[in-house]
Amino acid sequence: MLTLHDNITSGNGYKARLLLALLKTPYKRIEYDVDVGATRTPEYLARVNANGRIPVLQLDDGTCLPESNAILWYLAEGTPYLPADRLARAQALQWMCFEQYSHEPNVATIRYWITHNLEMTPERVAAMPGKRKQGVAALAVMEGHLAKNPWFAGGAFSIADIALYAYTHVAEEGGFDLKPYPALRAWLARIAALPGYIPITKG
Amino acid sequence: MLTLHDNITSGNGYKARLLLALLKTPYKRIEYDVDVGATRTPEYLARVNANGRIPVLQLDDGTCLPESNAILWYLAEGTPYLPADRLARAQALQWMCFEQYSHEPNVATIRYWITHNLEMTPERVAAMPGKRKQGVAALAVMEGHLAKNPWFAGGAFSIADIALYAYTHVAEEGGFDLKPYPALRAWLARIAALPGYIPITKG
Repeated sequence: MLTLHDNITSGNGYKARLLLALLKTPYKRIEYDVDVGATRTPEYLARVNANGRIPVLQLDDGTCLPESNAILWYLAEGTPYLPADRLARAQALQWMCFEQYSHEPNVATIRYWITHNLEMTPERVAAMPGKRKQGVAALAVMEGHLAKNPWFAGGAFSIADIALYAYTHVAEEGGFDLKPYPALRAWLARIAALPGYIPITKG
Repeated sequence: MLTLHDNITSGNGYKARLLLALLKTPYKRIEYDVDVGATRTPEYLARVNANGRIPVLQLDDGTCLPESNAILWYLAEGTPYLPADRLARAQALQWMCFEQYSHEPNVATIRYWITHNLEMTPERVAAMPGKRKQGVAALAVMEGHLAKNPWFAGGAFSIADIALYAYTHVAEEGGFDLKPYPALRAWLARIAALPGYIPITKG
């Protein structure tokens, strides 16, 4: 059986949980308290992920696969959640890279600082305005795409939508106002209405 | 013919250039001066990439594909540079996500600030120690993998290696010392010796 090394508040972990739920794939979940460094122990670094992060998908043979979007790709291959067309696959990956580079470090990081009550160090105080601005810019790029397309890649719901949904649907927990983005809000509602959908709080 | 919207100093652009050279695929290259905002003009945002970045691969039919790692994936499908095995493909993507999230924002960003003579704003000054530390951590994770494996995924040179090579081989331009990483330096040398290899300065 698959094992997901996870933290229940993590949007990156939720990406895997949501896809596993949609696929009706059973798995075991191991919860880590990231606030006390549970993913930075010598044992975790040696046996689960040398990069010290969750989520990690552990396969039947013990192989540990880190990185939320790689986990999505692995689980989705051969299912309708990964487009079959070459260009659509690349476009799914395009949006997943956008999520990791332009969206997550801003929208997710501010939410993490706030919801985990992290100390506002001088480094975080200095970074906040830039992250706020870039997070808003990422949401605007999503709105621009969703004003013209119902989904992010291949004309159908895919792992690109899951990747971007994870932290967008809880962006308001990080103080991002989603009111200016009607197409984005309609897309969030379409995903929440999918058969088999589970909320981020569901372990 | 393919068109690459590019900047010659960009490691992200170099990923595409290096793979196109290895594949012997002809293409047209358009250079943008990122220091004067050439990728943030209304025309660029409307016609090339709403996210305002290079590289973008423009296909024969005009479709514009942003995100360096999505471009690598698109070009590599059906070639030896993308593993055929499902797990190896996911592991290639794992390392490409690691590159975009844990490596590039640290190793590449500091190099960019230095080599493009950017003003050291209070935000950049505050961010520098964290980026330096995380960049060193990323290099150490790579060294740990390369001490036990010749390549990053599937037991052969792949786009995961190209993605990580791009900014690692010029990390010293950002003040990162590569001496402590012998396996990493041997890997850099193996890539530079590949038939068809081109340097980052080659347009």
